[in-house]
Amino acid sequence: MSKIVDYIEWLALMRVFISDLKDHVGQTVELRGWVFNSRSSGKIKFLLLRDGTGLCQCVYFTGECEPAALDVFPQLTQEACVRVTGKVREEKRSPGGFELGGLSLEITAPSVDYPLSPKEHGPDFLMSHRHLWIRSKSQHAVLRVRAEVIRAIRDFFDGRGFTLTDAPIFTPSACEGTSTLFETQYFDEKAYLSQSGQLYMEATAAAFGKVYCFGPTFRAEKSKTRRHLIEFWMVEPEVAFNDLYDNMELAEQFVEYVVQRTIKNCAAELAALERNTSGLANVLAPFPRLHYGEASQIIKKENPDFVIGDDFGGTDETIISSKFDKPVFVHHYPSAIKAFYMKEDPKEPGSSMSCDLLATEGYGEIIGGGQREESLQILREKIKEHKLREEDFAWYLDLRRYGSFQHAGFGLGVERTVSWICGLGHVRETIPFPRMYGRHYP
Amino acid sequence: MSKIVDYIEWLALMRVFISDLKDHVGQTVELRGWVFNSRSSGKIKFLLLRDGTGLCQCVYFTGECEPAALDVFPQLTQEACVRVTGKVREEKRSPGGFELGGLSLEITAPSVDYPLSPKEHGPDFLMSHRHLWIRSKSQHAVLRVRAEVIRAIRDFFDGRGFTLTDAPIFTPSACEGTSTLFETQYFDEKAYLSQSGQLYMEATAAAFGKVYCFGPTFRAEKSKTRRHLIEFWMVEPEVAFNDLYDNMELAEQFVEYVVQRTIKNCAAELAALERNTSGLANVLAPFPRLHYGEASQIIKKENPDFVIGDDFGGTDETIISSKFDKPVFVHHYPSAIKAFYMKEDPKEPGSSMSCDLLATEGYGEIIGGGQREESLQILREKIKEHKLREEDFAWYLDLRRYGSFQHAGFGLGVERTVSWICGLGHVRETIPFPRMYGRHYP
Repeated sequence: MSKIVDYIEWLALMRVFISDLKDHVGQTVELRGWVFNSRSSGKIKFLLLRDGTGLCQCVYFTGECEPAALDVFPQLTQEACVRVTGKVREEKRSPGGFELGGLSLEITAPSVDYPLSPKEHGPDFLMSHRHLWIRSKSQHAVLRVRAEVIRAIRDFFDGRGFTLTDAPIFTPSACEGTSTLFETQYFDEKAYLSQSGQLYMEATAAAFGKVYCFGPTFRAEKSKTRRHLIEFWMVEPEVAFNDLYDNMELAEQFVEYVVQRTIKNCAAELAALERNTSGLANVLAPFPRLHYGEASQIIKKENPDFVIGDDFGGTDETIISSKFDKPVFVHHYPSAIKAFYMKEDPKEPGSSMSCDLLATEGYGEIIGGGQREESLQILREKIKEHKLREEDFAWYLDLRRYGSFQHAGFGLGVERTVSWICGLGHVRETIPFPRMYGRHYP
Repeated sequence: MSKIVDYIEWLALMRVFISDLKDHVGQTVELRGWVFNSRSSGKIKFLLLRDGTGLCQCVYFTGECEPAALDVFPQLTQEACVRVTGKVREEKRSPGGFELGGLSLEITAPSVDYPLSPKEHGPDFLMSHRHLWIRSKSQHAVLRVRAEVIRAIRDFFDGRGFTLTDAPIFTPSACEGTSTLFETQYFDEKAYLSQSGQLYMEATAAAFGKVYCFGPTFRAEKSKTRRHLIEFWMVEPEVAFNDLYDNMELAEQFVEYVVQRTIKNCAAELAALERNTSGLANVLAPFPRLHYGEASQIIKKENPDFVIGDDFGGTDETIISSKFDKPVFVHHYPSAIKAFYMKEDPKEPGSSMSCDLLATEGYGEIIGGGQREESLQILREKIKEHKLREEDFAWYLDLRRYGSFQHAGFGLGVERTVSWICGLGHVRETIPFPRMYGRHYP
C-alpha cells in the first residue's frame, strides 16, 4: 500500500456529500457516488462524480495520485458506483465551485449496459425506466423544483397561522359524482379514494379557523392529456369567515409567494432546464379578475363553438390566459357546472361564488375554489338537485346545523404548478413516479 | 342606531383572528367565532369566544356597550356563531393574554341542541361526531401537536439536505405479503395501496443521495388495538452509503429533534392535555442500543412464553422500554422475521441489519428500519425464499444492476409519535379523521 493511503487512513477519513464540500476545503475526504462522465488528457484524468446532492470533478494527476487509481479509469462505465478520496479545493469552473484533487479511486459496484444512454429515448421507454431516469440532470432538476414548491406551500400557510389538518384518503361517499372514483373494499363496506379533502377542511376550519390539507388525491380519468395524472398532490386551504374576494386575495398572495420563492431558490435547477423565468418574475399580486360572463365573450370571439354556460376546455383557458401576462382569475361560473357546495351568489342567481385561477403561458387551471354554501336548507336542496344521497352528507350538514359560518377556500394542484414553473411539456415529469391512464409501473 | 356603532363603522372595522389580537391592542376590531361559554354577573356579562385560533374573553358592561348586545346573551348557546366588536386590551388573566371590551354582539347562525355537551361521552359517540369533537379543547390541542410534529419532521430533513421525493400510493405489487393490502381496480389491471414508500426511496436515494417521503400508508389489519390505524402517515428517509449504525445515529438525532422542538413549541397544548413532559425532556441522543439477543433475554425473564427468534408483541416491547428512561433501539432481529430487502449481516448469518426504536412509557415501536441488501444475487434468492414474484421487482433489482450502493433508512409512524408525545391512551385521537377497522365515517 502506498504512503499516500497510509496517510489518509491515519487521518480517519471523513465521508462527505458533494453538497457539503464547501465546508471541507483543504481537507482530504472520501466521496461516494456514481460515474457521470470520465475522460483522459495526457497525464491527467477527469472523473465527473454524481452523488445525488451534486456533481464534482475529480482530477487525477500521474505522480500525485495512487497509481492504481489511474488503472481504474478504463473500467469506468456510466453509473458505476465508486469510492474516491482526495483533497478538496475551490475551483470556480467546476460544476459546484469545488473539485477534488484525486488520490484513490475504486469501483464498488459495476454498471454494465446502463439502459439510459445520453442518446434520445422515447417517452414510453423513459417512463418504464423512471427509477433510473430520475438520475438524469433534467429530471433531477424538475424534482428538486417540486420539493422546493412543496416547501414553499407549507411555509406560506404555516407562517400565516394555518393549521395543517390532514384529510382522510378513504371516504365513505363520493362528493362529486362516482364516475371518476377509485373504489376499494373496506372490510365489509365500500370505500372510495379521496378526490379532494375540501369537505373535511370545512369541518376543521370551524375547529382551527385557518386550515389546510396537503396530500395525494385520485381521479380515475381515462384521459391521456399533458395536464392529467391519476394520482396527484393537492393543497387545500380553507378559511373561516372568508368570502369569495378574500379567497382570491389569499390565492394570489399564495401563488406569488410560491412562484417568486421557487425561481429565487431554484435558479440553478431552472437554468439547467433552460427555463426563461422572465415571465414568472412578473407573477405578482394582484392578478386580473374576470367575471365568467366577460371571459365567455373573449373565448366566443376566438372559438365560435364555445357554448356560453359551459365549462372551459383547455383551448378556452389558453385563449383567456394569452390575453394577460399574469395569472388570471375567472369567477362566478354558472352554478350548474360547479359542485353542490359552491354558494350561489344571492345578488346573481344562477352564478356561483367560485373562482378558478388560470396560469400564464397556456398552463391552464392551477387553482379552483370559492365560497361555500352555508345555508342548511339551500345545501339540502342542492344535494337533491345533484342527485346525491343526503345521508352520505349527514356530518357535513352538521356544520350548518351548529353555528354555520361563512367560509371559502381553494385547491392548488402541485404537479400543474411545477410543470408551469419548470416550463414542461407534460405533467408526468413533475412527480417521482407518475400514475397515468395505462401506467402504474414502476 | 347608537353612536357607538356609527363610530365603529366610521373606523372601517377590521376583522381579525384571536391569535392576532396582540397586534391590535387599543384598537376596535371585529371578531367572528363560536360561543364557547357565557355568563352574567350583575352589570357585567362575559362571552368566551372561540375562533379556532384561540379563545378570547369578551366583557360587556351595561352602559359601555350597545344595549342590544346585552339582550343577545340569553340566546347564546354552545357553538352558536357570532360576530362581536370591541376594543382590544391586555389582560393577563384572560386565556390568550388579551380580552375584548365588548361593544356589539350578534348571532349570525344558531346552534340548537349541540350534541357534544361538556358531559362525558363514550368513544364511539365521540368518533361518530369527530367533525364536531375536534372543536373541543383536548382534540384541538392534540391536532395542534400533530401539525407541529409534522412541521418538525419536515424541517429536520429539509434542513439537512434531504430531498422530498413523494412515493406513489398506487403500486403494482405487494412488497410485504398481500394479506393486509387494499386492492383496487386500476382500469384494466389491479393496483394496491402503498404500505410503505421505502422501495421507491431506494431508487430516489440513488438519484438524490438523501431523500424522504412523507404520506399516507395503508394496512388492512383487522385489529382493534390502541396502536393501530388503517390509514396512517409515515415519514421514510433513506440515505445513500449509510450503514445500520449511521442509520441509528440519524434516527436518534431525528427523534430528539422532533420531541424537543414539540415540547418547546407546544407547551401550551401539552399543558392543556395535562401531559407531564419531564420524561420527554430526557429524550436526548444517544439512545441505548440492544442486540436482539440481549433484548430477548430480558423479555424471557418476565414473559416466559416469549419464543426467542419471534418478533416482539406489545407486552414484550413494554418490558424492554420499561428498563430505560430513553427510547431504545433493538437491532439485529432474525432475518426470518424481517422483510426480504433487509441486509443479512455477513458477520452474523441469520441476523438482519435491522433496527427498531421503541418509545418510552410503553408506547412501543415508533421506528422500523435498517440497512438494505445491495447484492443482486442475494436479493434474488431472498425474493424466491419469501415466495414473491421476481418480475414484480424488476425495477427494484435494476438498482442493484446499475451501480448498486450501500444504503439504509427507516420509517417513523406519525400517529404513534403524536400519541406518545401527547401521552394519549389511543392513537385514534392523533389524526383528524381516523380510519380504523369498522370505521371510515365521518
